[in-house]
Amino acid sequence: MLELGTAPEEPCLRADAARNRARLLEAAARLIAEHGVAGVTMEAVASAARVGKGTVFRRFGDRTGLLMALLDHSGRRLQADFLGGPPPLGPGAPPLERLRAFGVAVLYRSAEQLELQLAAQPEACRRFSHPATQALRTHVTMLLRQIVPDADCELLAHTLLASLDPALIHHLTRQRGMPMARLEAAWVDLVARVTRTQRPA
Amino acid sequence: MLELGTAPEEPCLRADAARNRARLLEAAARLIAEHGVAGVTMEAVASAARVGKGTVFRRFGDRTGLLMALLDHSGRRLQADFLGGPPPLGPGAPPLERLRAFGVAVLYRSAEQLELQLAAQPEACRRFSHPATQALRTHVTMLLRQIVPDADCELLAHTLLASLDPALIHHLTRQRGMPMARLEAAWVDLVARVTRTQRPA
Repeated sequence: MLELGTAPEEPCLRADAARNRARLLEAAARLIAEHGVAGVTMEAVASAARVGKGTVFRRFGDRTGLLMALLDHSGRRLQADFLGGPPPLGPGAPPLERLRAFGVAVLYRSAEQLELQLAAQPEACRRFSHPATQALRTHVTMLLRQIVPDADCELLAHTLLASLDPALIHHLTRQRGMPMARLEAAWVDLVARVTRTQRPA
Repeated sequence: MLELGTAPEEPCLRADAARNRARLLEAAARLIAEHGVAGVTMEAVASAARVGKGTVFRRFGDRTGLLMALLDHSGRRLQADFLGGPPPLGPGAPPLERLRAFGVAVLYRSAEQLELQLAAQPEACRRFSHPATQALRTHVTMLLRQIVPDADCELLAHTLLASLDPALIHHLTRQRGMPMARLEAAWVDLVARVTRTQRPA
């Protein structure tokens, strides 16, 4: 099990070091897309990013540190998108549209990094107290409060997020062979039901 | 991790052996209620059920076998209740009432055996393919098909069951201190929203 959400994004990384870090993470993400999580070794990342192996070790410590940083990086990007990116995911769109867009974004992000997310799932009694999932929950709760202020929005947010659980997406797409389009349609339908609104045409 | 749903309930246990087994399982359940899962040792169960230690070992093999049998036993009881017990959980009540009663029954059963259920959670990539959860899903899907035949009932069933996940109940009640009554009310509300019906008065 990896520990997530605890990897410190160094606050004042010098510009070239930050570029270096981003290049390494992109290289690691490409390796995962091509060869699965098993394909990510410190050597492979160094070679794919055309830097020395020492640079990768200095930056991430070890392979677990690299995988952690990778998930943390993509989690922060998603967070930046829904907190301050363009609508409908970011501010500016009505909350119902933002909620729809949020689920679709999480679904496809999870589908892209399913192996990594599964490897990083915390054990049962820490799954819901994890900082990374808490940030998502805060966002969904905030949107729900604007749409259905009389509901128990905190518990509804738990339910909505549970339907986006990477382990569930893995089961449905890999073990049951469902296409992502079906999961996306089910999310849009679930949001409509939970908020007692109509599905978009 | 325990393996669940695979413990064979011996089909033709002789009556006295069956009574013996039931007594041992009841003793184990009492021990868990009083001292937590850690309180269940083969010795403690033997002593609580007033049988020799050898009987417990012969019946369950080892402590894991005993815990498995315990969960399997309670899972089968729940299944018997919703498949053939009295309404509203069992047949005879309208499907919407059965669905409501199902969630409440699962919630309180999980709350009673939270430690045991958490200890037995399969790893992420097997959580949803597990026979015990599949039986629950089949039931919820069947009820949903009678209430909202046009919906993607299979995926809605996943969502409803995710809101009853023992790890979530653990988080909400033990880590967040929410009362069970709030979880129960949220379930009833969720069922109403998902089925686009009114909450019962």
